[in-house]
Amino acid sequence: MSGQQTIAAGTGVGLRLKRGEQLRVIDPEGGQSGDLLAFSLDGSERFSNGRTFDYDGKIYVSTGDVLWSNLSNPMLTIICDEVGRHDMLYAACTLEMYRIQYGVTGYHANCHDNLCTALRSVGVEPHPLPTPFNFFMNVEVAAGGRLVFAPPPSRAGDSIVLRAEMDLAIALSACPASTCNGGKTPGPLAYEMMGG
Amino acid sequence: MSGQQTIAAGTGVGLRLKRGEQLRVIDPEGGQSGDLLAFSLDGSERFSNGRTFDYDGKIYVSTGDVLWSNLSNPMLTIICDEVGRHDMLYAACTLEMYRIQYGVTGYHANCHDNLCTALRSVGVEPHPLPTPFNFFMNVEVAAGGRLVFAPPPSRAGDSIVLRAEMDLAIALSACPASTCNGGKTPGPLAYEMMGG
Repeated sequence: MSGQQTIAAGTGVGLRLKRGEQLRVIDPEGGQSGDLLAFSLDGSERFSNGRTFDYDGKIYVSTGDVLWSNLSNPMLTIICDEVGRHDMLYAACTLEMYRIQYGVTGYHANCHDNLCTALRSVGVEPHPLPTPFNFFMNVEVAAGGRLVFAPPPSRAGDSIVLRAEMDLAIALSACPASTCNGGKTPGPLAYEMMGG
Repeated sequence: MSGQQTIAAGTGVGLRLKRGEQLRVIDPEGGQSGDLLAFSLDGSERFSNGRTFDYDGKIYVSTGDVLWSNLSNPMLTIICDEVGRHDMLYAACTLEMYRIQYGVTGYHANCHDNLCTALRSVGVEPHPLPTPFNFFMNVEVAAGGRLVFAPPPSRAGDSIVLRAEMDLAIALSACPASTCNGGKTPGPLAYEMMGG
C-alpha cells in the first residue's frame, strides 16, 4: 500500500506495520482527534498507557517518546509531531458512554467498536480493549486533577509520524464524539504508510 | 469472614464481596500504598480507569466517587477516605519493570503477579490485567504532564472504605516497590469486610 488513505468521519481502519515502517496520521481538515491502538501480530502484546506513563514519566508524549506494551517492549516511537498534544487517559468512547453522557437511545458510531472491528480485520482479537493513544485529543489536568476538554490543536494538514519498533497490528478510528473535537461535527482523518 | 486481616509486605490476597458489603483497607504502619482490582464474579467485567476518568471527570477520586467498569457499570463507591490521595495512572509493577528501572536480575515480588494470583484464587482469569486503583499512592501531575512520586500521605491506621455496587472478585496487593512508598522498605496492609 502506498499513498494517502482517507478514514471517513466516525469510522475506523485496521492495518499491519512491519518493524521499521512508519505511519503518518493526518488531520486533513483540522480540529479532529482519533484513537490508535497497537497489538503484536499474534495479539499477545498490546499498547499500555500505564506502562508508557511509567517509562516515559509523563502523561503527554511527543517527538522522541515511545509507546510501550504491557510486556514492557517498545511498540512505536513518535518521530515527528506537528500537533504536540495527545491524550492517553480516556478509554475509547463506547455505545454505553453515549447513552450515559449524551442520552443517545439508538446506535451511535463509537471508537470502541471501530477499533475492535479494525483489529479483527487484521487478525487480532482485542477484547478487552485497552485504553488507546488518543492522538490530537486535548485534555488538560486542572486543579485537583479535574479533567478539561479543549479543542484538538491540529490545523488542517497537521500530522504525527510513528515508527514501528516491532511488527504490529494497528487500528485507527476517527473519533465520532463532538466533545473530543471542539464541539464541531466529527470529520475524517487520513494516513499513509512509509517504508522503513 | 470478620475481623481485620493482615496482608504481609509484598504479598496479595483475593476475596469476594457481595453487593452492598463494604471493604475497609488499612495502612497499619503508615506511608504504604497498595493496588486494588475489581472484577465481576464471572470475570466478564473489570475495573476501568479510563471509564472512571471519564464519568468522574478527574484523575483523583475520594469520598463519594465511583470506580467504574469497562462496561460502564458502577463497581465500587468510596464511602470513607481518611487519606484522600490515590493513583489510577500507573500500571501494576511487573518483573520487567524491576528489571528495566531497577536493574533487578532475579525474581522480585510485584503487584502484577500478586493481583493475578489473587484473582485466580477467587476464580477469575484476569489476563491481560487492567491498570489497578492504586490506593494511597501519591502521584502528582507537574508542569507539562510530568509525573512526580511523593510518599503516600497515609498515617498509621488510616483507611479507605469502599462499598460494592455489584458482586465482585477483588484483589489487593501490598506494593513491594520502594519508589511508591517514599523510599522506605515496603510494609504490610490490612483489610476487613463489613456487612452491607
